[in-house]
Amino acid sequence: MYDLLGTLSLIEVSSFVAAPTIGLYCAQFGADVIRVDQIGGGQDFHRLPVNERGDSFSWENLNRAKRSVALDLTRSEGRELLVRLCQDVGTLATNLPPRGFLAHEKLEAGRLDMISVRVMGWPDGAIALDYTVNAGVGYPALTGHGDEPVNHSLPAWDFITGAYGAFALLAAVQRRAATGLGGEVRLPLTDIAMGTVANLGRVAEVVHTGQDRPRLGNAVYGTIGRDFVTADGARVMIVAINERQWQGLVRALDLSSAVAGLEAAFGVSLSGDDGVRFRHRDAIFAVLEKAIAAITHAELVERLDVEGVTHGPYNTLPQAMQDERLFTANPLFTMSNNNPSGLAYPAAGAIATIPQMERTPAVPAPHIGQHTEQVLAERLKLPAGEIARLVDTGIAGIAP
Amino acid sequence: MYDLLGTLSLIEVSSFVAAPTIGLYCAQFGADVIRVDQIGGGQDFHRLPVNERGDSFSWENLNRAKRSVALDLTRSEGRELLVRLCQDVGTLATNLPPRGFLAHEKLEAGRLDMISVRVMGWPDGAIALDYTVNAGVGYPALTGHGDEPVNHSLPAWDFITGAYGAFALLAAVQRRAATGLGGEVRLPLTDIAMGTVANLGRVAEVVHTGQDRPRLGNAVYGTIGRDFVTADGARVMIVAINERQWQGLVRALDLSSAVAGLEAAFGVSLSGDDGVRFRHRDAIFAVLEKAIAAITHAELVERLDVEGVTHGPYNTLPQAMQDERLFTANPLFTMSNNNPSGLAYPAAGAIATIPQMERTPAVPAPHIGQHTEQVLAERLKLPAGEIARLVDTGIAGIAP
Repeated sequence: MYDLLGTLSLIEVSSFVAAPTIGLYCAQFGADVIRVDQIGGGQDFHRLPVNERGDSFSWENLNRAKRSVALDLTRSEGRELLVRLCQDVGTLATNLPPRGFLAHEKLEAGRLDMISVRVMGWPDGAIALDYTVNAGVGYPALTGHGDEPVNHSLPAWDFITGAYGAFALLAAVQRRAATGLGGEVRLPLTDIAMGTVANLGRVAEVVHTGQDRPRLGNAVYGTIGRDFVTADGARVMIVAINERQWQGLVRALDLSSAVAGLEAAFGVSLSGDDGVRFRHRDAIFAVLEKAIAAITHAELVERLDVEGVTHGPYNTLPQAMQDERLFTANPLFTMSNNNPSGLAYPAAGAIATIPQMERTPAVPAPHIGQHTEQVLAERLKLPAGEIARLVDTGIAGIAP
Repeated sequence: MYDLLGTLSLIEVSSFVAAPTIGLYCAQFGADVIRVDQIGGGQDFHRLPVNERGDSFSWENLNRAKRSVALDLTRSEGRELLVRLCQDVGTLATNLPPRGFLAHEKLEAGRLDMISVRVMGWPDGAIALDYTVNAGVGYPALTGHGDEPVNHSLPAWDFITGAYGAFALLAAVQRRAATGLGGEVRLPLTDIAMGTVANLGRVAEVVHTGQDRPRLGNAVYGTIGRDFVTADGARVMIVAINERQWQGLVRALDLSSAVAGLEAAFGVSLSGDDGVRFRHRDAIFAVLEKAIAAITHAELVERLDVEGVTHGPYNTLPQAMQDERLFTANPLFTMSNNNPSGLAYPAAGAIATIPQMERTPAVPAPHIGQHTEQVLAERLKLPAGEIARLVDTGIAGIAP
């Protein structure tokens, strides 16, 4: 946690991963993020993984450092309070549909410089999720070793969308500060994904070659990188990402004569152009495989480190959680005790490091409705009696 | 492209994917992004995919809408000019090492409120790349169907880091505007990855269960989602992400009696809790497989759309590029003619949609050194004779 955004307030009405991430990143940088949920929690409040009580570990980590207001959004009085909160705060992040009761035009009618950032499926409002979008832009067709499509397990498009959404939100806030103008920033997952494919040069590549690139298994496109197994059975990802690292890899594994042999066999130079190396990757991989299978992981690490070649072991998550630099001695993580689930564990703060500022510990997620009374009093100036009436009639909910 | 950040100027000294993405996102929102490269281009200037001349399609798409200054950074005079440019502009995005000639302390010595955003491998300055980081935090161990780790082919950590870097940059700029203070924001890929794993609740899950989650093949964790094949051989990703969609899926495929059978067989209710459905996913998938294998893709789509269940086909990228909503009729893409590669193709602008603003077309990447003279005159106020001397002596480079 770093206090960079202490002047920003944000209403978040969200579920799943992408939209909550927008608020999470802002909250971890010190913004006042007020999450508004249906009383009892929304559709992702019990999303797996959960404890025995059904408290969601994903919900409580995606919603750290936010405040929580609970309203009955099935009733018009609850929805109207949420609209007033949005208009008072002036900035909203949501994944609710563009034509619903939080439509930008409705909010804007009561707050001229309203900013809404809206995570969507398709631009036309049709539904889509990370998993369907990923299948649609072609990554499963390139993943894995066989002929069948393989889904990746990281919801990458959700996180790219969440991070980009946080960026777009601050850009819109900066424009509002300069011009007084608000607006709605729509972020369809399909556009984020197809735009990212294009940004990687892959649309141009298909226009140029007329076809998709080949499926590469665990190899990295465009350079020399793949997984290898050492004499003692460790699997290591090695990438010689530039000329210097390629030369280092050849020295590290004492392969200069083997590489000279490949150069003679194929009539090419393997120095100076990683495109040439990539085209001859199968032969190079065979040479690397043999050399790496002959030495231990410890010896491999020592040799690659001397030469500055990029490498890293394959871990399971429990193994990663034994690693000092990744986790056990990483200042990014601080013990979090007061989580809604009751479980104590190391939690991540802001995923940046700012040497000039004090890093403060991760803050727990709220209980649903924990800040309802506080926020209604503070933002809507509701008198205590009116708040009590809203709670008594079930329009507003408070934490048990 | 949208003009949200017209008041922001940024020096970018970068290579590969994450750091150029920071500048790309800012440039597509109207910031003046001045990319400084070694004369002739840096280590990623010919990165695959390339045309026959070696012009990189990834470079020219990750560097759209930026200006280009070329300097001889192997000579101290070139490096000194770059330091002066950084200090004049006051904001830098880079993936150069924290202890090199663009160390934040050195820049700050000449510009008190300097902001540097630095993409790194490990927090201690050790090298790491998307591919090694991904192996290290455990995603390949969960990906695919077999026992072997499977790397995903999307450089997801690079894009998450790039988008988060753009967000962190704007947060730091906002703090500077409010307080006058600068600072360095460090973004180690390892922290971005391990922090994201934690944000998904997976660290808490491992603390709670003592073990990693199982490998799920193409199934989605925590709900009912997987790929299925229709009678006419189409592969479709289907996700019933909430209770409403689950009920819709049962209706769409006329499965109420089959589901009742499963409920009787297992002694559970499959309504109301997607955790219960997820635990019985194998039986549910078997029922879904059979129902979907009996109907055509067209029929499946019609039935799922009526019920509002999330689905999408598996495409290759060339197939995605035939899709109207993804690509051929998507206003995100505009024909880009004046690319450094000479190839004309539809290019992506900012990956957001702002209905209240005019969307302007994608702008090509610069030629290396195209803006050297302009930027040296404009930012460092160098006289024409001095600029000519720098070009003549090879300290500065201009586009051919």
